[in-house]
Amino acid sequence: MQFVFDFSHAHERPPKDLKDLLGGKGANLAEMTSVLGLPVPHGFTITTDACRAYMNGGWPEGLSDQVAKARKRLETSMGKVLGDPADPLLVSVRSGAKFSMPGMMDTVLNLGLNDESVVGLASQTSDERFAFDSYRRFISMYGRIVQDIPADEFDGPLEQAKESAGVKSDAELSAGALKALISDYKAVVQKHTGKAFPQSPDDQLRGAIEAVFGSWNGPRAFAYRNREKISHDLGTAVNVQAMVFGNRDDNSGTGVGFTRDPATGAQGAYGDFLINAQGEDVVAGIRNTLSLSALADSFPDVYSELMGIFSRLEGHYRDMCDTEFTIDQGKLWMLQTRVGKRTGVAALRMAVEMTQDPAIKLTKPEALMRITEDHLSQVLHPQFAKSDLKVIAKGLGASPGAAVGRAYFSADDAAKYGDQGERVILVRSETSPEDVHGMIASQGILTSRGGLVSHAAVVARGWGKPAVVGAESIKISNKSFTLADGTTVSEGDYISINGTTGEIVLGEVPLVNAEAPKDLTTILSWADEIRQGKVSVRANADNGPDAKNARDFGAQGIGLCRTEHMFLADDRLPIVRRMILAEGPHDEERALEELRQAQKVDFVEILTAMDGLPVTVRLLDPPLHEFLPDVETLLVKEASTGLSEDEEKLKKAALEWREQNPMIGTRGVRLGVLKPGLYEMQVTALMQACAQRVKDGGDPIVEIMIPLTVTGEELEMARGWVEGAIDKVASQDANLALLKDKVTIGTMIETPRAALRAFDIAQYADFFSFGTNDLTQMTFGFSRDDVEGKMMTAYLEKGLLKRNPFDTLDQPGVGELVALASERGRQLKPDLKLGVCGEHGGDPESIYFFVKAGLNYVSCSPFRVPVARLACAQALI
Amino acid sequence: MQFVFDFSHAHERPPKDLKDLLGGKGANLAEMTSVLGLPVPHGFTITTDACRAYMNGGWPEGLSDQVAKARKRLETSMGKVLGDPADPLLVSVRSGAKFSMPGMMDTVLNLGLNDESVVGLASQTSDERFAFDSYRRFISMYGRIVQDIPADEFDGPLEQAKESAGVKSDAELSAGALKALISDYKAVVQKHTGKAFPQSPDDQLRGAIEAVFGSWNGPRAFAYRNREKISHDLGTAVNVQAMVFGNRDDNSGTGVGFTRDPATGAQGAYGDFLINAQGEDVVAGIRNTLSLSALADSFPDVYSELMGIFSRLEGHYRDMCDTEFTIDQGKLWMLQTRVGKRTGVAALRMAVEMTQDPAIKLTKPEALMRITEDHLSQVLHPQFAKSDLKVIAKGLGASPGAAVGRAYFSADDAAKYGDQGERVILVRSETSPEDVHGMIASQGILTSRGGLVSHAAVVARGWGKPAVVGAESIKISNKSFTLADGTTVSEGDYISINGTTGEIVLGEVPLVNAEAPKDLTTILSWADEIRQGKVSVRANADNGPDAKNARDFGAQGIGLCRTEHMFLADDRLPIVRRMILAEGPHDEERALEELRQAQKVDFVEILTAMDGLPVTVRLLDPPLHEFLPDVETLLVKEASTGLSEDEEKLKKAALEWREQNPMIGTRGVRLGVLKPGLYEMQVTALMQACAQRVKDGGDPIVEIMIPLTVTGEELEMARGWVEGAIDKVASQDANLALLKDKVTIGTMIETPRAALRAFDIAQYADFFSFGTNDLTQMTFGFSRDDVEGKMMTAYLEKGLLKRNPFDTLDQPGVGELVALASERGRQLKPDLKLGVCGEHGGDPESIYFFVKAGLNYVSCSPFRVPVARLACAQALI
Repeated sequence: MQFVFDFSHAHERPPKDLKDLLGGKGANLAEMTSVLGLPVPHGFTITTDACRAYMNGGWPEGLSDQVAKARKRLETSMGKVLGDPADPLLVSVRSGAKFSMPGMMDTVLNLGLNDESVVGLASQTSDERFAFDSYRRFISMYGRIVQDIPADEFDGPLEQAKESAGVKSDAELSAGALKALISDYKAVVQKHTGKAFPQSPDDQLRGAIEAVFGSWNGPRAFAYRNREKISHDLGTAVNVQAMVFGNRDDNSGTGVGFTRDPATGAQGAYGDFLINAQGEDVVAGIRNTLSLSALADSFPDVYSELMGIFSRLEGHYRDMCDTEFTIDQGKLWMLQTRVGKRTGVAALRMAVEMTQDPAIKLTKPEALMRITEDHLSQVLHPQFAKSDLKVIAKGLGASPGAAVGRAYFSADDAAKYGDQGERVILVRSETSPEDVHGMIASQGILTSRGGLVSHAAVVARGWGKPAVVGAESIKISNKSFTLADGTTVSEGDYISINGTTGEIVLGEVPLVNAEAPKDLTTILSWADEIRQGKVSVRANADNGPDAKNARDFGAQGIGLCRTEHMFLADDRLPIVRRMILAEGPHDEERALEELRQAQKVDFVEILTAMDGLPVTVRLLDPPLHEFLPDVETLLVKEASTGLSEDEEKLKKAALEWREQNPMIGTRGVRLGVLKPGLYEMQVTALMQACAQRVKDGGDPIVEIMIPLTVTGEELEMARGWVEGAIDKVASQDANLALLKDKVTIGTMIETPRAALRAFDIAQYADFFSFGTNDLTQMTFGFSRDDVEGKMMTAYLEKGLLKRNPFDTLDQPGVGELVALASERGRQLKPDLKLGVCGEHGGDPESIYFFVKAGLNYVSCSPFRVPVARLACAQALI
Repeated sequence: MQFVFDFSHAHERPPKDLKDLLGGKGANLAEMTSVLGLPVPHGFTITTDACRAYMNGGWPEGLSDQVAKARKRLETSMGKVLGDPADPLLVSVRSGAKFSMPGMMDTVLNLGLNDESVVGLASQTSDERFAFDSYRRFISMYGRIVQDIPADEFDGPLEQAKESAGVKSDAELSAGALKALISDYKAVVQKHTGKAFPQSPDDQLRGAIEAVFGSWNGPRAFAYRNREKISHDLGTAVNVQAMVFGNRDDNSGTGVGFTRDPATGAQGAYGDFLINAQGEDVVAGIRNTLSLSALADSFPDVYSELMGIFSRLEGHYRDMCDTEFTIDQGKLWMLQTRVGKRTGVAALRMAVEMTQDPAIKLTKPEALMRITEDHLSQVLHPQFAKSDLKVIAKGLGASPGAAVGRAYFSADDAAKYGDQGERVILVRSETSPEDVHGMIASQGILTSRGGLVSHAAVVARGWGKPAVVGAESIKISNKSFTLADGTTVSEGDYISINGTTGEIVLGEVPLVNAEAPKDLTTILSWADEIRQGKVSVRANADNGPDAKNARDFGAQGIGLCRTEHMFLADDRLPIVRRMILAEGPHDEERALEELRQAQKVDFVEILTAMDGLPVTVRLLDPPLHEFLPDVETLLVKEASTGLSEDEEKLKKAALEWREQNPMIGTRGVRLGVLKPGLYEMQVTALMQACAQRVKDGGDPIVEIMIPLTVTGEELEMARGWVEGAIDKVASQDANLALLKDKVTIGTMIETPRAALRAFDIAQYADFFSFGTNDLTQMTFGFSRDDVEGKMMTAYLEKGLLKRNPFDTLDQPGVGELVALASERGRQLKPDLKLGVCGEHGGDPESIYFFVKAGLNYVSCSPFRVPVARLACAQALI
């Protein structure tokens, strides 16, 4: 197997497409060398195949030989030999995985220097100081990176040397001082490794290559791949390249350049450079860099050559490129290029503008593929600006965006100070419907318990309000919380939370506000063109304002209107409780009648906001005890202060309806079977709202959805109730006579059995909507409330799960059920409408799957609608 | 479509095989008439097709015409005409479904009589009294059965008539008195129906046929079919047959006869008869019947004809037959036959003896197919004898068998009085591990809460001790319980419970003790011959005594040894708690070490009992909070009396480990991921127990099972722990060096995802064991603890589920997952061992499915092992 390729190797495909094999850096070096003929120092790449072989069975057979041959070719082409005491060749060794990855070994420069060759370098360059400076840099770099010696160990002697010499900067150290420093550095190496610093260039090279391979499985690299969902099997390539020197003299320098501004997307080159410096100096920020435009003054020829190269790179890569270059005694060398990272704003602007750039001629589909979920998130939610404030704790990022405010520990306090105009963060161990007024008044919400479907998380996402939940390391007591290190955050202290990452910061982090640029509108309109007539995007919304909001974000209807959220409102909850506590059918009917009136008003608002677009109303789903007070609180109160008569009744009901595993208990249509009056009431309210809308000249389109079906018989029965209620209202109202035949009735597919028996169930369904949250819970047997903290973290860290199946659909397991239900449902009814309304409906990777599976729509929270519009289009492309 | 067939119709197949079409009664009447040529009164059968057509769309087109023609043929063959004022034909109308079914319309006799034809009958028979008695019987029967008039309404006038006449029995009423009674009866009908009693035989016949059809959907018939798992779609047939009269004179009579004794299985005819009586008199038990042997004296010719018929019937049906016959003026008529019902003891005896009967020559497989689960249950568990005591409440039959004892309401009391030799029933709202000593001392257990997997149910089944759980209608307070009607049962009162049916009786019901006759041994040995090398039967057992018991019942190993049950023992629980509360690794290790020692002892006992047979040990499965005290109890105590320091710690731990939905929370291998020391400890204890057994000359065979796997990666990791622990013990113990390679490692398949991904999981599994309890819970999203009461009842009653999926495997849903996992697992490993260890492993119908799906073994509670041995053999036949 060929493990080593020169940059100039003539690959069969363009090297830039060979990142799997050559890594990103190697692929682009080869592209610049062999395809574009740009000035790139010679070198070779050791492939990811070699790394994988190394990880599986140690240093691969034949690799030493191939490296030796490549080294020989390099030496021949450069006319120099590694370690040559007269005129040594120096090389850099860099890692280069398919994806750029912090936490991996970065770079070892000046490899090939030793006690002998440093003298040769000195005489060859007639610059002893340069030679010894290069050697001491090499020893410390190699020591740190390859031999794992802490950086401090090298910093100490350096500081001492400067102190002894009475100088402030490294550059002022004399050759003699550097020579002495080299001795100190070698002693450090001897102490730490028990061996002398390697003098043989062969040993140096082998050590550096192994260090690169080994860094692939370093803890930071591992954690990064987990976070970024990168496979652990890829491995990294290693690039060995002849050194050029930006630090040789004042006719030398080094810099980084972008072909456009990566922050704003503005056209024109952008970057920094330093005269008489090596690459690391630019990145390290030790010296003040110059802007790229200054290069035009100091190196006009180099500048004009570089601008020419930028232009060729953009045209060739058809995208903004990020480069590293070095000027060695007036000659320009390109050390690296890649398609550059960019902010959301820049991504949108570039994508739009590059469609009009004659050198690039991006097509609209190509432009769409350039935009990621992160880009949209950045322009749609406020973000933390850069700040020195420290992250004091982390929870689950439950609702994206950042928020800053004073901590308050009760909903009442939050509401009080929030209403007075203060910025407030509500901090609770968990929230319940009784906290809603405080949540409304807050900038953001922080809880120490609960997962991504906890009350706080669901409500905050619905409102697009930042939230961090389940931050288990903060211990809340009365009006403060304490961290593991003893730090206490009290009422009124400023904190900042990042609902995207879960970070919690003490103090006020400056925020970068969301701004939806006009380029976003353009991009989304292109996405819509592609989706048109194929896949639509709806939103999950439970009230008029949310529905309006969703429509503003481009939702083409409501895919999930959770009627229980209406039940939890302050003025509704007492009625719901009266219904549950009802002592006879008369009491129950009276409570239902009150609820009916309230729900009708809600439905009118929603249908008004979504006039002319479909609204899927899910009949009551959660177990009844969710509408009752907590049993435990009541029992404790009973034991301490006693209960009032009303509380006694509530306790009895709460005990009666409580369940061991409510998630898989008496919920959904099961509740309908036990209390059919409930569903009839809801359908009646909905149909009366429709009648009202028709009377007011509106165009209501409703789809009624039955939750948690497991058998065809259930849906047949539920359909009977719904049709009965519709007929009853229609017989009383002329406005409904025409409308009633347009109402469709369908079901959630959210249990494995429903998916398996889709054929039975489709008999009675006009549509299926996949409830992938519940389907995931039941397919895995993962109660989201219970496993999403400690357990899920352990599973992801140990690689037992590639990703959290509640964030991204588990295609091999849950996905098979979705595909199977779609197939079986459509086998019976080829036109069966299919949608998804779980949170996966807003996750791009899951959306790709759903689109491929032939779903007609996805539905997600209003704030995810733009993401979904884009992702659907990308899936279709 | 042909809706009507004469008994003498020449069907293409033997009519006895046409029960689907003709119903049981009609099929056998046709068999006796057209195949055996026995003396059967002529008649015809209206098919179940007609009934189904009637249920779907009312009286079927063409039926009237076909009935009229059949009636005409009957009249022709009998030489008499219905309603003929001179010499009327009378007929009986009886329902006859495929399965005999109480709650359906039974019989209308003497149809065809009216005010005119009664006179003809009188003159024709020269017996006015007989004619009027027949007419008044007809009116009351028709009134009751067809016209739904309460029986009391007819009893009143009859009693009055007897009183007026000054006689005691109906038979003493004169013709005149009967005439007057007929007027009264007709007035009753007029009052209730608003119409005169129908005089037209056509109307009478149509009314009776419709009443039979209608009775199919009567509430009692519906409930019976639910209980007996009979489809509601079958419908019933209707038989119309010329009347013969056992009540014509003293040369007439009627009786029921069995070809063998249905109670004991003894050979020789058995039955009752009455002289001068109609069939209903025998059944009603108003008059004292004579034994069949007395018939030999009073009707020697008839007796010898009947014995000949019995012998032909047994030879023809190759089974014991149950018959009804009538003697009309000395002539024998057969009115009905069918294969007779029998007790468990009789079923076993007949099955064995009939293999040696030259007229029957039953094969062993045929004999096996004659035995049902109920038969075995009867001989394996004590049963209620007949008793007048009333059932005061019903719960769920959680562990079969009947028990009688005094009610005690705490485990301590039960243990105290039980140990004093009293028979005790422990009555608790629910039980917990702390009640175990009281449960041991009791005859049976009754709880008012919990389902079929509650602690009480699971423990009682394991011990084969009768239990009724979830009897929600009894309200327990302190030392008594109260029923809805106010009845109070106090401490020390005798109660009887039937763990098979869930019945609770106040007082001492006499018990019929279980006896395992030698025929059982014979039958089970035949079953074993058939199973040999194909499907084995194991037991679920968690300790030495249970394992021994299981082996005595014929278990061929343990399919599920739940190690957590060992953790719950009085002397283990404190150690488990110490492990959970451990403040550092040292404390945790010390507690684990104590547990290891205790578990080793347990394992040695189990392996000794199962020496030479495989024992599948499941590593810890339940959530940790099950080993901690109830949070609520602690919170309430805290609020009232305060907590001790230890309790404070327990509260903290209980709060930390409690979950919203523990059934789908941190359980099984997930616990192993969070606390890997646990599994290592268990494997170490097990392997040390093996070493001990080898040292003692034993032959331990162990299979280690990982619970709740959802991904291949999980099993790979868990397998690593297990192998690591095995290697460690093996390296310390020479006895294990050879054994260790024989240990197999597998997993439960109990989540839908595990079933779907069986291909991944099989890579790391030597065997799969289907945990169909959990698989059912997750496939349906049914938390068994929550849905098995009210909700399941509603679902079964409304026909939303055909049967409780926790009793009998849901083949269309859960079964598909089992089949799919088997197929995918064996695709990778054709020899993958497959078993089932859920409670379905003891349910015959589920066993048929498992055997068909190719499973290698089923495992069930020890007391179900005989049932499973039989069912496996039946499935193979």
